Amino acid sequence: MSRIDGRTPDLLRPVTIERGWSKHAEGSVLISFGDTRVLCTASVTEGVPRWRRGSGKGWVTAEYSMLPRSTNTRGDRESVRGRIGGRTHEISRLIGRSLRAVVDFSALGENTIVLDCDVLQADGGTRTAAVTGAYVALADAVDWARRNKLVKASARPLTGTVAAVSVGIVDGAPLLDLCYEEDVRAETDMNVVCTGDGRFVEVQGTAEGAPFARTELTALLDLGELGCAVLTEKQKEALAA
Amino acid sequence: MSRIDGRTPDLLRPVTIERGWSKHAEGSVLISFGDTRVLCTASVTEGVPRWRRGSGKGWVTAEYSMLPRSTNTRGDRESVRGRIGGRTHEISRLIGRSLRAVVDFSALGENTIVLDCDVLQADGGTRTAAVTGAYVALADAVDWARRNKLVKASARPLTGTVAAVSVGIVDGAPLLDLCYEEDVRAETDMNVVCTGDGRFVEVQGTAEGAPFARTELTALLDLGELGCAVLTEKQKEALAA
Amino acid sequence: MSRIDGRTPDLLRPVTIERGWSKHAEGSVLISFGDTRVLCTASVTEGVPRWRRGSGKGWVTAEYSMLPRSTNTRGDRESVRGRIGGRTHEISRLIGRSLRAVVDFSALGENTIVLDCDVLQADGGTRTAAVTGAYVALADAVDWARRNKLVKASARPLTGTVAAVSVGIVDGAPLLDLCYEEDVRAETDMNVVCTGDGRFVEVQGTAEGAPFARTELTALLDLGELGCAVLTEKQKEALAA
Amino acid sequence: MSRIDGRTPDLLRPVTIERGWSKHAEGSVLISFGDTRVLCTASVTEGVPRWRRGSGKGWVTAEYSMLPRSTNTRGDRESVRGRIGGRTHEISRLIGRSLRAVVDFSALGENTIVLDCDVLQADGGTRTAAVTGAYVALADAVDWARRNKLVKASARPLTGTVAAVSVGIVDGAPLLDLCYEEDVRAETDMNVVCTGDGRFVEVQGTAEGAPFARTELTALLDLGELGCAVLTEKQKEALAA
Amino acid sequence: MSRIDGRTPDLLRPVTIERGWSKHAEGSVLISFGDTRVLCTASVTEGVPRWRRGSGKGWVTAEYSMLPRSTNTRGDRESVRGRIGGRTHEISRLIGRSLRAVVDFSALGENTIVLDCDVLQADGGTRTAAVTGAYVALADAVDWARRNKLVKASARPLTGTVAAVSVGIVDGAPLLDLCYEEDVRAETDMNVVCTGDGRFVEVQGTAEGAPFARTELTALLDLGELGCAVLTEKQKEALAA
Amino acid sequence: MSRIDGRTPDLLRPVTIERGWSKHAEGSVLISFGDTRVLCTASVTEGVPRWRRGSGKGWVTAEYSMLPRSTNTRGDRESVRGRIGGRTHEISRLIGRSLRAVVDFSALGENTIVLDCDVLQADGGTRTAAVTGAYVALADAVDWARRNKLVKASARPLTGTVAAVSVGIVDGAPLLDLCYEEDVRAETDMNVVCTGDGRFVEVQGTAEGAPFARTELTALLDLGELGCAVLTEKQKEALAA
Repeated sequence: MSRIDGRTPDLLRPVTIERGWSKHAEGSVLISFGDTRVLCTASVTEGVPRWRRGSGKGWVTAEYSMLPRSTNTRGDRESVRGRIGGRTHEISRLIGRSLRAVVDFSALGENTIVLDCDVLQADGGTRTAAVTGAYVALADAVDWARRNKLVKASARPLTGTVAAVSVGIVDGAPLLDLCYEEDVRAETDMNVVCTGDGRFVEVQGTAEGAPFARTELTALLDLGELGCAVLTEKQKEALAA
Repeated sequence: MSRIDGRTPDLLRPVTIERGWSKHAEGSVLISFGDTRVLCTASVTEGVPRWRRGSGKGWVTAEYSMLPRSTNTRGDRESVRGRIGGRTHEISRLIGRSLRAVVDFSALGENTIVLDCDVLQADGGTRTAAVTGAYVALADAVDWARRNKLVKASARPLTGTVAAVSVGIVDGAPLLDLCYEEDVRAETDMNVVCTGDGRFVEVQGTAEGAPFARTELTALLDLGELGCAVLTEKQKEALAA
Repeated sequence: MSRIDGRTPDLLRPVTIERGWSKHAEGSVLISFGDTRVLCTASVTEGVPRWRRGSGKGWVTAEYSMLPRSTNTRGDRESVRGRIGGRTHEISRLIGRSLRAVVDFSALGENTIVLDCDVLQADGGTRTAAVTGAYVALADAVDWARRNKLVKASARPLTGTVAAVSVGIVDGAPLLDLCYEEDVRAETDMNVVCTGDGRFVEVQGTAEGAPFARTELTALLDLGELGCAVLTEKQKEALAA
Repeated sequence: MSRIDGRTPDLLRPVTIERGWSKHAEGSVLISFGDTRVLCTASVTEGVPRWRRGSGKGWVTAEYSMLPRSTNTRGDRESVRGRIGGRTHEISRLIGRSLRAVVDFSALGENTIVLDCDVLQADGGTRTAAVTGAYVALADAVDWARRNKLVKASARPLTGTVAAVSVGIVDGAPLLDLCYEEDVRAETDMNVVCTGDGRFVEVQGTAEGAPFARTELTALLDLGELGCAVLTEKQKEALAA
Repeated sequence: MSRIDGRTPDLLRPVTIERGWSKHAEGSVLISFGDTRVLCTASVTEGVPRWRRGSGKGWVTAEYSMLPRSTNTRGDRESVRGRIGGRTHEISRLIGRSLRAVVDFSALGENTIVLDCDVLQADGGTRTAAVTGAYVALADAVDWARRNKLVKASARPLTGTVAAVSVGIVDGAPLLDLCYEEDVRAETDMNVVCTGDGRFVEVQGTAEGAPFARTELTALLDLGELGCAVLTEKQKEALAA
Repeated sequence: MSRIDGRTPDLLRPVTIERGWSKHAEGSVLISFGDTRVLCTASVTEGVPRWRRGSGKGWVTAEYSMLPRSTNTRGDRESVRGRIGGRTHEISRLIGRSLRAVVDFSALGENTIVLDCDVLQADGGTRTAAVTGAYVALADAVDWARRNKLVKASARPLTGTVAAVSVGIVDGAPLLDLCYEEDVRAETDMNVVCTGDGRFVEVQGTAEGAPFARTELTALLDLGELGCAVLTEKQKEALAA
């Protein structure tokens, strides 16, 4: 049984990672998972938030947002509504936590890196594309910081790599990397964030329709591990280019 | 190796579920998981939000909040700051989704039930206590709605029960139902929401320190399933009282 | 002519004052005036707001709030609306002023005590119950501060006690301590705050229906003085326990 | 012992009431109590807020505000801060309640009158000047509504008049109509709102320094009654002009 | 063809500039352009915003606002809506920029002057009246600062004068200083801000109906220059009085 | 004397207009003026805002925003600050007015088109690029509406074309289409919006340093007319492609 776009259940959509997209940012990546396109920029500043000053440690945080017409119908701007919505909050926090899992803050020193992940076009999996692209932007920003002497030449602020993918159960079948049409039909939706060495940073599974059995959960985790491993390779290729 | 409070790794803290705590609400439960105390009230109103009108279906939603001094140091009120924080948003959404997983909205008819989960005292696991207590308040509110003819006598708006528990890895050991001291020391923290028949509604695992291996994830899921099963029993006892 | 609940015009509802309700707060009281239940917690922190630094004087302030379903019909959370309403502001200010009337700020030293008064269940008189309970929580917090050396052993930060009660004219008769049903029918509504030695800290009388004559005002003040005197005794008993 | 500005304790400052100050508003009054100047405009619109529709009754409400430099040092605009402060809320509510005490809403019919009280220059007693001036603007607006057939010719939407004055105890002496310098030194501060026939609409007394005795309260109420009686005469003169 | 109020196309409405309107502000001017009345107050404070500290330079900024019933129909207060609207922002920025064009910030030293321009009555041209009046209030504030030694006796913080006027094309004819009725009918609306020596500080022309030709633009600029020149004379007269 | 990037004073930067950039929007254009890149999307919805219902007329509005790291140093998100800044408001309003100048709302019928202009990379002239690109997106959206029968086949909702360019005086020389480095050094900065037939829609000139003479204003208007004429050609080419 083939998928909407002809993929097999365990196949990712085409992934592209374009580095150096912006002339201003210390790291900038335009990542696409199929038609999902997210611009990830990394901004380095000396110093850390007040609660961390004097600790000798740095900080990494993230903000996620969707352009109003990145989606099929236009959404109101959160700036106009005057509030960040719950979904935006959740995803921004997820991206930040995921990246921090591979950062050695002592090695980073008292520097702050902010990852902005702005969805230019959405077709499912925006948060996982954002994590995956933001890691590459972060890696470039760390290099920039080293070249510009904010970080010592010998320091290794990144302890590993991190990537993320969505998985879900659609019509009873576990599928990797859901596009929007699959996502809205999914009975269960899960986001898996893994390090390059195959460990888990974050697992968030939600029953959208019926609750899911332990066997289904196991199948989804298998697919998520697989997808992250492939994305880890894509990140390496992009960073080697 | 015993835990801070002497429990074995797979033991819940003492759980109490006190129904009918408030004279005004259609359902109200004061639930405690050890020193964590959450007041869960269910408010029934006829009608549904605008986007759902005319569908013949009801709606269930939740709002979570902590009293400013429910915690060890006082937190600012979100009403005073003028904004709901990201954590509050996330937990409110989690509670709402968890409850909706066991609601048949057609059977509920065009009625809305709002679950307010206010943490009176916090000692870890407030969100899981909230889900577990809110289910009982919801059950009482559905009964109220049936007795008051908002819902047909033959309708079964609840398709099952739902309970939640936190699990985590502390000093390398998987533990059930973390208290606050364990929670801050946990390397990995996971919230598991299960239905009474042992399926999963929500799984949210986060590496707080080091990423976690698949074997650790499996151990945590085992503990979570166990804890939810025990909590399901507690809910039944409370509702039978 | 007896009242809704059988009381004579000059009788308070049953009053209970439960100290040490919370394990975290330096002072915590669950006070009830009949079915009205307010949780009052006192939080002590070293230091004072910026405008008071270097003065050698402390500060005491209060915040009042109602849980959404403390009332007969659910009210929206002020945190969700993003604004504190006028009534909340007024009552928070009233509680703060009332408590400050019996505080010697030089004796308190540069420490701040915040009183959080959260209405768990409302049945009229929530603001007066809050003042009366908050005083007890404040007294416990001051003791805590003395035991923990934030305040000198010889210092007497409290110069007296303070209690509050509502009075009103219902069907032409002056009544003490109105419950909700009486409150909505009252032609005139007054809150009286007195010190333990029988002086006035605050008098707020409002004609809800017809304006009131000077003779009625006199009768209300008499009742208010009486009610505060009885509440002062209740506070002493609670603090002696 | 004479006062700062040479007045006897029971003397008001010079009062002026200038009607028709604005070309747009249905009623507009520039009132001054000494150097305190408040512009009170009354805006009449057909219809009432949603919660009152179909009742056949009208509505009267008020909004109070201070220009940023109406005071000795510039205050931030509440529009810039994005929030109405507690004091502004309290005073707006006081003015609204005071005026509503003399309105027969059935006679007004389903019309709304909004009183805007903007302090152009402040020197103590701004809220009492606002109540006193707003009544005159309201009277003009009601006349306008009658002339323009929004209100029946035979209807009497105003059941009386209302005026307000501040009183206080300064250096142990009860004084009428405090100017700013007296206000900041007052041990007790009270605002009294009376109808033209000498009854009370609102009494708000606050101990700023020491609590006050019943005898002092009596003296302040006497002064307040007197002041309101004189202001009632000034209102009549202004409306007769 | 004469105008609504009988003026010739190149005639201003009657202009009055009343200095010293407020007892508190360092400079205060009530300016009227016909029925448009704007209260402009200048508040001087020592020190500058954080981003300018240590520069040796001062700062001048402005805030514009309309009283809710300054207009024909009542507008909601921006403080109540919790947001400054776009139009208010635009005009506040215009006034600030216009005044800063004639300020030598080094001569002013590290002092801040805030110009508050509150429209008491609106009949077209409120922003240009605000600029013109604010300049006079600014001049008085600078004098005050010199007399009070915040600014050196030899310093000349004002490098010139500034005035503003509206022009527009109504029924095909270029007109100076539009009143409200003309403004709503204008096909093109332009605000011109000039220094006293006839140079331009700001030109803002907008096609309200049809786009305008270069020849029309030229005619409007001619009128604007003329109007500003006359207003410059009025300012001089006012400051000489 | 050549410019920073080697251009002559009257030369635009390279302009590219890429249509159909987004798969979701009814019109979408990625426009670049040199390194300035703005994504302009047009969203068509049936119906109009409430104040326009039943008029038979449509509505066109615009929202402008900058991605946080579109600039040299990262700016805070307005959604996070909870407020739209003054500059954003001003530019959104300018874009909306500019486009409405070429729309026949009766021909558009009761449909709304929202233009979102999001700056992906900023290097001066973002608002003029936004106007110029938004026009092209609008034209595509109008075509879409016609093809989808929201607009009659015979209707001509666009009465012309509109384009915008910045001009300024740098080191005494009038220059066309300032890049960021020129913009910050400009003594005078002007934005000119013209229709395709050479008339003006908007002229906004501001003295950043010294006020400007009428002769300079004339030179800037000449350059602005020229630049808009060239951009009009670019728009035609893009729409013909």
